[in-house]
Amino acid sequence: MVKVGIIGVGTVGTSVAKILKENADIISARAGQEIIVKSGVVRNLKKDRGLDIKLTDNVDDILNDEEIDVVVELMGGVEEPFEIVKRALKSGKAVVTANKALLAYHRYELQAIAKDIAFEYEASVAGGIPIINALRDGLSANHIESIVGIMNGTCNYMMTKMTNDGVDYDSILKEAQDLGYAEADPSFDVGGYDAAHKLLILASIAYGIDAKPEDILIEGIQNVSQDDIAFAKEFGYAIKLLGIAKKDANEVELRVHACLISKDEMIAKIDGVMNAISVVGDKVGETLYYGPGAGGDATASAVVANIIDIARSGKSAPMLGFDKAFDGKLTLKATDDINSKYYLRINVSDKAGVLAKITKIFEDNNISIETMLQRPSLASSANLLISTHIALEKDIQKMIKDMEALEFVNSTPVMIRIV
Amino acid sequence: MVKVGIIGVGTVGTSVAKILKENADIISARAGQEIIVKSGVVRNLKKDRGLDIKLTDNVDDILNDEEIDVVVELMGGVEEPFEIVKRALKSGKAVVTANKALLAYHRYELQAIAKDIAFEYEASVAGGIPIINALRDGLSANHIESIVGIMNGTCNYMMTKMTNDGVDYDSILKEAQDLGYAEADPSFDVGGYDAAHKLLILASIAYGIDAKPEDILIEGIQNVSQDDIAFAKEFGYAIKLLGIAKKDANEVELRVHACLISKDEMIAKIDGVMNAISVVGDKVGETLYYGPGAGGDATASAVVANIIDIARSGKSAPMLGFDKAFDGKLTLKATDDINSKYYLRINVSDKAGVLAKITKIFEDNNISIETMLQRPSLASSANLLISTHIALEKDIQKMIKDMEALEFVNSTPVMIRIV
Repeated sequence: MVKVGIIGVGTVGTSVAKILKENADIISARAGQEIIVKSGVVRNLKKDRGLDIKLTDNVDDILNDEEIDVVVELMGGVEEPFEIVKRALKSGKAVVTANKALLAYHRYELQAIAKDIAFEYEASVAGGIPIINALRDGLSANHIESIVGIMNGTCNYMMTKMTNDGVDYDSILKEAQDLGYAEADPSFDVGGYDAAHKLLILASIAYGIDAKPEDILIEGIQNVSQDDIAFAKEFGYAIKLLGIAKKDANEVELRVHACLISKDEMIAKIDGVMNAISVVGDKVGETLYYGPGAGGDATASAVVANIIDIARSGKSAPMLGFDKAFDGKLTLKATDDINSKYYLRINVSDKAGVLAKITKIFEDNNISIETMLQRPSLASSANLLISTHIALEKDIQKMIKDMEALEFVNSTPVMIRIV
Repeated sequence: MVKVGIIGVGTVGTSVAKILKENADIISARAGQEIIVKSGVVRNLKKDRGLDIKLTDNVDDILNDEEIDVVVELMGGVEEPFEIVKRALKSGKAVVTANKALLAYHRYELQAIAKDIAFEYEASVAGGIPIINALRDGLSANHIESIVGIMNGTCNYMMTKMTNDGVDYDSILKEAQDLGYAEADPSFDVGGYDAAHKLLILASIAYGIDAKPEDILIEGIQNVSQDDIAFAKEFGYAIKLLGIAKKDANEVELRVHACLISKDEMIAKIDGVMNAISVVGDKVGETLYYGPGAGGDATASAVVANIIDIARSGKSAPMLGFDKAFDGKLTLKATDDINSKYYLRINVSDKAGVLAKITKIFEDNNISIETMLQRPSLASSANLLISTHIALEKDIQKMIKDMEALEFVNSTPVMIRIV
């Protein structure tokens, strides 16, 4: 029998306990033994969670309990769970976590501490989709060429609704908050940070890259407008917040931002709150994984799968995919060196000669225009919607600065990268 | 170091040997040790395969070689590989196979023989997509409610082209043969047998169901015509060959046939030769796995992933997902008892009163019509295209027999189930 202690019995923790009970028949048949929750740690002992497990508000009751084999960490945060998980591993307990922030900052230290102890984290990326499993085990024969994913359901819901219903950003954000898809402070989701944490975890498994959120390009969807959606529709694109990891020779670029992506790509067809991750391997080609990226039961499904793995075989694969540290031939590409096509929305005063001046700035910065749409904005101003051929990030950034300085450019141009 | 022997060095076997060499850097970092191919068995020693491994035409050279740890079976067939794989397992060698026919017939015997020896078969279902991995490990916390999959790329290619290009079945079959997507004798693919083998493997992992191809409903795409595609387009469906496993209380239905499926479903959006499998779990909801279902490198990617798993940890999960035999509460549903909506194409003589007589037969068989289209066929005949509300398979089969007996019905009505 495997005994589990859950630290943090909120929505996901409650689902973990319920699944282990409700599906005990199939779980014990698959695990080869019973799995039970012995106790859980909560902050508020008075709240009724509808569970018949022993609750405590002292984490030591789990960490010092020699009967507990597996610690499930669902408390959230970074430094506090890091200390707790380290203690659990050092006392020989296997650990399962859904905590992406913990891993975004401390995954390599945790791998070093865990050594032969199982440390699993399937639920930390894309909720119920077994993407860690796929990338670490199923695609292990491949050099990974790219990972492109819809890793944040809130943003995908908002982009889908803005596209299908023609509503503006602020209205749809409020609707997402009312539905519980977005937090009262939505910046972690709409700013791209949530997706970035997940991307960093996947990048370690694919490439052995030890980067932190501060090291990579992270932008959100806050600047996307109906003008951009009109442009996307006109030219056969969808707009998505994507997490992107891409290998180019010995460099790996990691970035999270809103993207224009061809409607023909599978990933562009993923609508609503669902997540999907496309992985291209040098041998297998493209595979894609789709499913619910959040929700108590979906996330708990991944947590329980990890517990079953541990019951079956202890540690069956290296935590981050590489048994020996991969020898670091791959390095993080500088943001300035990223190549992309770009789309720009430039709000200009509607005066004679402006278009010529704008196109001259593209030329001066060595950036070649592919398509252009002009749409009326407020009286006496217009939005120029322009896509470029492949250009260098640093050239685009410089050009945007050049434009900002011009008296007939009314606000900072909005830029969306084209995938 | 792990030493591999490959039995059957054809397209996939050659790819396995090449991947283990070309990607040796990343494979040894992930596996924690080197993996090399020591020897391969071929029928024709004179053919140059461009490999620098030792070739032999005697399977004993691998089975009796004590240095070989892993036998990769890629020879095809059923009884001959069964005997060879049994010998390998009994001598303590791990086995990896891509052979779906072997597993469709002998998977439970192999599980019993393998016991603690690793026996892996990721490549046997959906080529490069790690669906065995996902279903057996990633979704192990769930009771599986349904599996609906495009498991045969040949059929999906043909259905996609018939839909998009308006060509008829015979022309597109010839094109698929010219492109190498279909065999000279295409019946194994277009008749649904290939998909059925894969479905049976997945059904064992999901449900512990021990069925053979002869036990389940298997139909192909041979009767699909442009009339059916016109009906599908009119009413918002795609036509796909699907493998379906569905749990209903204590029964599981397993079937492979052409289906009309709503265009809004993710699985309906999968075009061309690609495979995709949608799995609904009681806790996680729907997840979907998409990728290449065939091809030497894609299939070999899955074979090599299994070898890496074995190098990492030996046997990490029960072969068919259940460590103890699942206690058989689930049984196979009789084909007659399947419930579905149905579509029928009935070619009738274009005479007064025929429509009334046809609709009367529906009424007599207690089958309720949902939609009807009438399209002209040859002179003096018409195709009635009819969809029903939910009906029972045995009632539909009886009604088709009743219709066949009628003098104004010109040929056996074509039936396609609606998912």
